[in-house]
Amino acid sequence: MNQPLHRFSEDELIERLVRLVPHDPSPAAGPGDDCAVVDLGKGKPLQLLKTDAMVEGIHFLPDAPPRKVGWKAIARVVSDFAAMGGKPERFLVTIALPAAWPLARIEGIYRGMGDCLKAYDAVLAGGETSRVPEGSAAVISVAATGSVDRKHLTLRSGGKPGDLIAVTGKLGGSLGGRHLTFNPRVAEAAWLVEHLKPTAMMDLSDGVAKDLPRLATASGCGFQLNRDAIPRHRGCDVAQALGDGEDFELLFTLSPKRWNEDAVKAWRAVFPKLPLTVIGQLVSPGEGTTLEGGWDHFGK
Amino acid sequence: MNQPLHRFSEDELIERLVRLVPHDPSPAAGPGDDCAVVDLGKGKPLQLLKTDAMVEGIHFLPDAPPRKVGWKAIARVVSDFAAMGGKPERFLVTIALPAAWPLARIEGIYRGMGDCLKAYDAVLAGGETSRVPEGSAAVISVAATGSVDRKHLTLRSGGKPGDLIAVTGKLGGSLGGRHLTFNPRVAEAAWLVEHLKPTAMMDLSDGVAKDLPRLATASGCGFQLNRDAIPRHRGCDVAQALGDGEDFELLFTLSPKRWNEDAVKAWRAVFPKLPLTVIGQLVSPGEGTTLEGGWDHFGK
Repeated sequence: MNQPLHRFSEDELIERLVRLVPHDPSPAAGPGDDCAVVDLGKGKPLQLLKTDAMVEGIHFLPDAPPRKVGWKAIARVVSDFAAMGGKPERFLVTIALPAAWPLARIEGIYRGMGDCLKAYDAVLAGGETSRVPEGSAAVISVAATGSVDRKHLTLRSGGKPGDLIAVTGKLGGSLGGRHLTFNPRVAEAAWLVEHLKPTAMMDLSDGVAKDLPRLATASGCGFQLNRDAIPRHRGCDVAQALGDGEDFELLFTLSPKRWNEDAVKAWRAVFPKLPLTVIGQLVSPGEGTTLEGGWDHFGK
Repeated sequence: MNQPLHRFSEDELIERLVRLVPHDPSPAAGPGDDCAVVDLGKGKPLQLLKTDAMVEGIHFLPDAPPRKVGWKAIARVVSDFAAMGGKPERFLVTIALPAAWPLARIEGIYRGMGDCLKAYDAVLAGGETSRVPEGSAAVISVAATGSVDRKHLTLRSGGKPGDLIAVTGKLGGSLGGRHLTFNPRVAEAAWLVEHLKPTAMMDLSDGVAKDLPRLATASGCGFQLNRDAIPRHRGCDVAQALGDGEDFELLFTLSPKRWNEDAVKAWRAVFPKLPLTVIGQLVSPGEGTTLEGGWDHFGK
């Protein structure tokens, strides 16, 4: 197999690689969901584990404001905890940087990480710094533990044919700036798991076009999409709303019985500025539509 | 502060950065020890958290055998758990790679990671892949959870003046190949915390010259070193044994009362091939000697 990586999609690559290493014999959720889930024993919340990386030139530009880059590095991982119905706790940060970087830039990044940790009541527990060769991109790798009440754990795999598909917020155009400043939906997810009891949930990092098929596949379903219903940010068309990625809104499914006027009113009372929109429905596997586009890290 | 990073040592840089973010209010061990330590509640072992990175061109050469690179990526973190008297459990692996890398190379790296996970009874719990721009170095970032019995937790900070300083194995020359194939001292550390009850312990990643001052400072002590006693690998002089780094042996301190013929005999019965050597003694702060050299990631 001397093929270069860009022949493979990220999902194909991960599937090939994880086969080569040992796994938890009975994971609550293994590689493939937003977080790994660890059972620490009766009476304890479940522990969530997540790792994520930001690469200079890929996830942030060299001239991006450092404090926003730091915010984003932490916020991306916080968003994954929200996606399971949980919350973040302890963070480990690894930075690999060219030795010529100015101190002020990395201090700015750490200040931004501090802003986000404070905002979400999380802490730094450890870290590691390394040099990269001159000319190499900087890499910020973030790993973290979080927790979720057993009864609130929401996987990607729990959707059933007939469930409605919904999203929080508006989609598209994040590269205009929101990808650096977004607020992970921790409180919103906590409300949803308490009141609407999503059957499946994930965060929208690569765009509905990439992420909805992932959720549907994990749930063993197909899906129908009401393109006209997609909530779009100003200036975005449907293709952008579906494909731009880095929205970091919640994508979830729920029983149609739970979607009624009272529920929507209750949501609006708590989150008056954030729309909650039904955009489609899960269907039997093999039925429904397909989607193309979305963000892929290896460019297939 | 527009000074470039290479003006700062790694320790100085970390000290500056960790001030900028919130921490555990009462950590069992925070940034600065080999692992972070989390108390999961009575009756549970302590949880250990660790992150580490390997950068192409810094920690491994582009033509290094992929399977050995993978072994090293996991083994470095396993070694940090051993350094606390603990063992590894669940791993998160983030790889940031140029899209032109051949699939076979990253598969080889994952096979090597699998070898090491199996050897130390640990599992992969999750991961993340990302592209880096063409021409950038590959980065493999590994985060993991481990555990240690409350009574066996051994920090860097517990040494006292008068304690002996000891090391496992021989030192120096790891770049000749051992830095890719070393066996983390998990069983050895487990034996030590049970039988010799080290007062402080760490693993030798940057060399005695760098790491012994770290341990002594964390313990609020000075140190004396018996240079002639340093156990050296064949072909290495004392300077190499002290400064080469990446030995991944255990450096620890213990009460002189625990160091006697019976203890050494008992060690030899279990680990007949691995020497255990006293190389010096902790002394009062401000007394003793100093050391220069060892590996620093930002080259000060």
